[in-house]
Amino acid sequence: MNPPSPHAACASADAPSEVDLASLPPALGIGCRFEFEAVAPTHAVVMVEPHESERGRVLDERFAASGVSISTTYSDGFGNRCRRMTLPAGRSAFTYRATISNDAGFDVDDVDAHELPVGDLPDHTLTFLLPSRYCPSDELATVAFDEFGTMAPGWQRVDAIAGWVHAHLGFAYGSSSPTKTAADALRDRTGVCRDFAHLMVTMCRAVNIPARYAVGYLPDIAVPDPGTPMDFCAWTEVFLADRWYTFDPRNHGQRRIGRTVIGRGRDAADVAMTTTFGAVRLVGMTVTAEGVDGADG
Amino acid sequence: MNPPSPHAACASADAPSEVDLASLPPALGIGCRFEFEAVAPTHAVVMVEPHESERGRVLDERFAASGVSISTTYSDGFGNRCRRMTLPAGRSAFTYRATISNDAGFDVDDVDAHELPVGDLPDHTLTFLLPSRYCPSDELATVAFDEFGTMAPGWQRVDAIAGWVHAHLGFAYGSSSPTKTAADALRDRTGVCRDFAHLMVTMCRAVNIPARYAVGYLPDIAVPDPGTPMDFCAWTEVFLADRWYTFDPRNHGQRRIGRTVIGRGRDAADVAMTTTFGAVRLVGMTVTAEGVDGADG
Amino acid sequence: MNPPSPHAACASADAPSEVDLASLPPALGIGCRFEFEAVAPTHAVVMVEPHESERGRVLDERFAASGVSISTTYSDGFGNRCRRMTLPAGRSAFTYRATISNDAGFDVDDVDAHELPVGDLPDHTLTFLLPSRYCPSDELATVAFDEFGTMAPGWQRVDAIAGWVHAHLGFAYGSSSPTKTAADALRDRTGVCRDFAHLMVTMCRAVNIPARYAVGYLPDIAVPDPGTPMDFCAWTEVFLADRWYTFDPRNHGQRRIGRTVIGRGRDAADVAMTTTFGAVRLVGMTVTAEGVDGADG
Amino acid sequence: MNPPSPHAACASADAPSEVDLASLPPALGIGCRFEFEAVAPTHAVVMVEPHESERGRVLDERFAASGVSISTTYSDGFGNRCRRMTLPAGRSAFTYRATISNDAGFDVDDVDAHELPVGDLPDHTLTFLLPSRYCPSDELATVAFDEFGTMAPGWQRVDAIAGWVHAHLGFAYGSSSPTKTAADALRDRTGVCRDFAHLMVTMCRAVNIPARYAVGYLPDIAVPDPGTPMDFCAWTEVFLADRWYTFDPRNHGQRRIGRTVIGRGRDAADVAMTTTFGAVRLVGMTVTAEGVDGADG
Repeated sequence: MNPPSPHAACASADAPSEVDLASLPPALGIGCRFEFEAVAPTHAVVMVEPHESERGRVLDERFAASGVSISTTYSDGFGNRCRRMTLPAGRSAFTYRATISNDAGFDVDDVDAHELPVGDLPDHTLTFLLPSRYCPSDELATVAFDEFGTMAPGWQRVDAIAGWVHAHLGFAYGSSSPTKTAADALRDRTGVCRDFAHLMVTMCRAVNIPARYAVGYLPDIAVPDPGTPMDFCAWTEVFLADRWYTFDPRNHGQRRIGRTVIGRGRDAADVAMTTTFGAVRLVGMTVTAEGVDGADG
Repeated sequence: MNPPSPHAACASADAPSEVDLASLPPALGIGCRFEFEAVAPTHAVVMVEPHESERGRVLDERFAASGVSISTTYSDGFGNRCRRMTLPAGRSAFTYRATISNDAGFDVDDVDAHELPVGDLPDHTLTFLLPSRYCPSDELATVAFDEFGTMAPGWQRVDAIAGWVHAHLGFAYGSSSPTKTAADALRDRTGVCRDFAHLMVTMCRAVNIPARYAVGYLPDIAVPDPGTPMDFCAWTEVFLADRWYTFDPRNHGQRRIGRTVIGRGRDAADVAMTTTFGAVRLVGMTVTAEGVDGADG
Repeated sequence: MNPPSPHAACASADAPSEVDLASLPPALGIGCRFEFEAVAPTHAVVMVEPHESERGRVLDERFAASGVSISTTYSDGFGNRCRRMTLPAGRSAFTYRATISNDAGFDVDDVDAHELPVGDLPDHTLTFLLPSRYCPSDELATVAFDEFGTMAPGWQRVDAIAGWVHAHLGFAYGSSSPTKTAADALRDRTGVCRDFAHLMVTMCRAVNIPARYAVGYLPDIAVPDPGTPMDFCAWTEVFLADRWYTFDPRNHGQRRIGRTVIGRGRDAADVAMTTTFGAVRLVGMTVTAEGVDGADG
Repeated sequence: MNPPSPHAACASADAPSEVDLASLPPALGIGCRFEFEAVAPTHAVVMVEPHESERGRVLDERFAASGVSISTTYSDGFGNRCRRMTLPAGRSAFTYRATISNDAGFDVDDVDAHELPVGDLPDHTLTFLLPSRYCPSDELATVAFDEFGTMAPGWQRVDAIAGWVHAHLGFAYGSSSPTKTAADALRDRTGVCRDFAHLMVTMCRAVNIPARYAVGYLPDIAVPDPGTPMDFCAWTEVFLADRWYTFDPRNHGQRRIGRTVIGRGRDAADVAMTTTFGAVRLVGMTVTAEGVDGADG
């Protein structure tokens, strides 16, 4: 097992009071398996590996694809690791497994983090103020102003947005779709974690707070067992003071540990787990994210 | 002037306490003028005359159309008086003027009016429980259940819906469009009286209360001068106990006198003021609705 | 068995040349069975019986509902027979069975039927020129004008619309949804018979031809076995000359016999087979429409 | 005047046969002026200067903003030059003027340029295969397959897409809106150059051809005077063989000279001319793009 990293120390200091720190696993086992059925060889781009910014946490990893001879990776404009491969006709599958340090700490609660006037925001954050496909902050501008426009800027306002999203959407499996926007979710009052994240991103941008969409692995550590199969999770990152902070409107009220970012972008359009350029059916998917003993992950 | 009708007596008894009844005008002068520009002779259907249910209040009336030789009327499935005519090429205009008794009373506030279980509703009300083009009560069902689903049934719940619509939409000229639905209005948080009425209708239907859309003349009597040109008004009618009651979410908190219904339907699609079957431009419109001395109106 | 009706004679004369008239069944057995699961007693409106205009063809019929003590019927504004009942909590079912004369003839092909100028249309047809929820003829007006605006008016134009709809939409089970409009279907190029009918209605209205939506029983007589379970069918009725004609864009190119109208309206919103006012799940549905020996149907 | 650049030579060789090459201006004067009215100081991002890839063509340039003390520039992820500034309360304006070499040549017509299988496309092009806000290639996938799916791949197919877009949309000022997608444009059959470009991008992506949106200055050289005020133009770039080619579905059939790219992206969301983070009204805009004598621009 690795010695505790500075991150882990910070995490400990920051842990919710009720958590027994000694019980936290030193490492995480993450991964997934996708199975496809294709009518012809079909090119695909796969995004399931930790984001470039998370590479330092990876202890070991393995990507294996049955029936796929070659795969190459590249990093897209958001630092997401994209893997290209050509799926063969018929059945095929790929598996990704990694052991990573559980040293990113609990979600940070920094009530002193302040909002910046737009003019003081770093250049790289500005794209995260614009409307995007699933986050039409222009269409929901009046809702956002009505609800949050007159609140004092800062962490509390952002947290109020997370709470409002949590209160206004009901979580329901099967309630999302590939074309569902944050405006649709608010109309339906229903969604999955993707929709919660989109709605929070949208509200933040509409009041000029940079916000981006993140997707990754999130183990159920120090929280009640949800009793449902593990899946990828989506959440929101918000730029306050001088950094991006994690907010999770789906799990608002919980501080989580073990998040591992796979992809970041303006919204889900930028971080599809798999993109296939042809007639391919996804016939199976499993996701793993759990605490493990790091030494032999 | 006519002797007071039973309606008028009822109205007096029912008037808001601050209103000086002696000052109420005995009659109303209502009417409108539309001007068109057509590239070719074009058939039109016009709905600007009082609804069949209001005919008893009409003291005198006149419909005049320049350049239009013949017009005929019929009553549609909702009892709306529809007038057919063929507009000539070039400029044309029509004018409608009527004097009607101001005897329909103030909007009624009947806190004891109860909701009926769907099974007890009269047959004729059931169509007003269904979604319609501008009132997609299926799409907004979850919003309605979240907001009103657990309230005690009855007048207070319906009034709460009117208040909620009033609070959630901002009135703005030019914010509507021919395709704007109640779901769009809620997303924008903006609309005109048509949108307020649609959203109220939608919320009521979604919790199984029959609601319909009404449009008509509404004079500014016993209310502050709005300082804007008179226009047609749209409001909502809701079936409680054994009758339809008027609710006006745009003017929630005001009890009004002088409403004169032109048209009723599931939503605005059923009660267009003018429908033209060809390339016609509306180049001018004025609306009148004011208290007058009934004798010579 | 009944003697041949005048209708049947007419039908024979009109039959496609390749059909062996002697083989046509004298009567039809139609019906359906719906099964529900409700969490509480829930009111429902059911529309599965022949339309008022078809009552003369009914030889015998029976409506039976398990666990439902009382049902009443009424006729809505379109002449559709609506049956009201309260479904009990838990499982329930209703069954409708009828034998009707197969005397309505083949779909009529009347190439001389002419379009009427809007000004000459009967009053009762005008509502079928307006946009409706699923038939937004205003939104698709430019498409309609581009494709059909300059064609010579008359039967051939209407038939061209049917053919265009047939060519532009692919039939796919599961491709529709309760909120799918004709504009959505055209964007997806996909739908079920409901969507085909909606798109044809929309195109017709946009070029000022009255069109309505019809749903009913349609046996597979004198056509190849489609190899799929029988379902309700939707088609289009268009007003030409002095009557409504049947067009079936889903089955364009086939002239069918045995259509039995259940409901007519502006679009599917007016003719839902079942409308339930509460938490009810449809757990099963079967439809029957087949030729039978009329005597003992 | 500059000596002819290699680009210009190439352009000459490539010019449409009817063009008198001697008459082509050696340089272009491009620029714009925007006027704003703000209620409070408001941050803005402005994208009106030539794209990084065009910087070598700039002979001289000047950006001037009244009432704006400081502006800084950065290059976004697409190489677009973005200028940040804070608009003062009240009226303000900025002006950009540049002289650039007219050496980019006529739009290239390369009928031998072939499509690449997705697996052979360079990594950097893959993002331009994905749906984006205004280019929902997933929603229009069936349209694209129906129309272009079985055509032979290559330049001719892409040109057929440009022609199809040109034929299916009517150009109309005022027919676009900030939320109008390619699917909306196809439903309306109407748009401005932005919508033409979006629809072409969408169709290309749906059949797996990388396509991006470009906006820039386009002088009316060697084409009839359109008789309307100069504006920014939007067009499409498509990746074939080993490079991006310009297609202009709005002006399909014309080969143009003098295009100067300002911005590129997935769609118009990435290349807004001005983005203002507050209550700012655009009160005036003029655009210049014309041939000039390069020496003293």
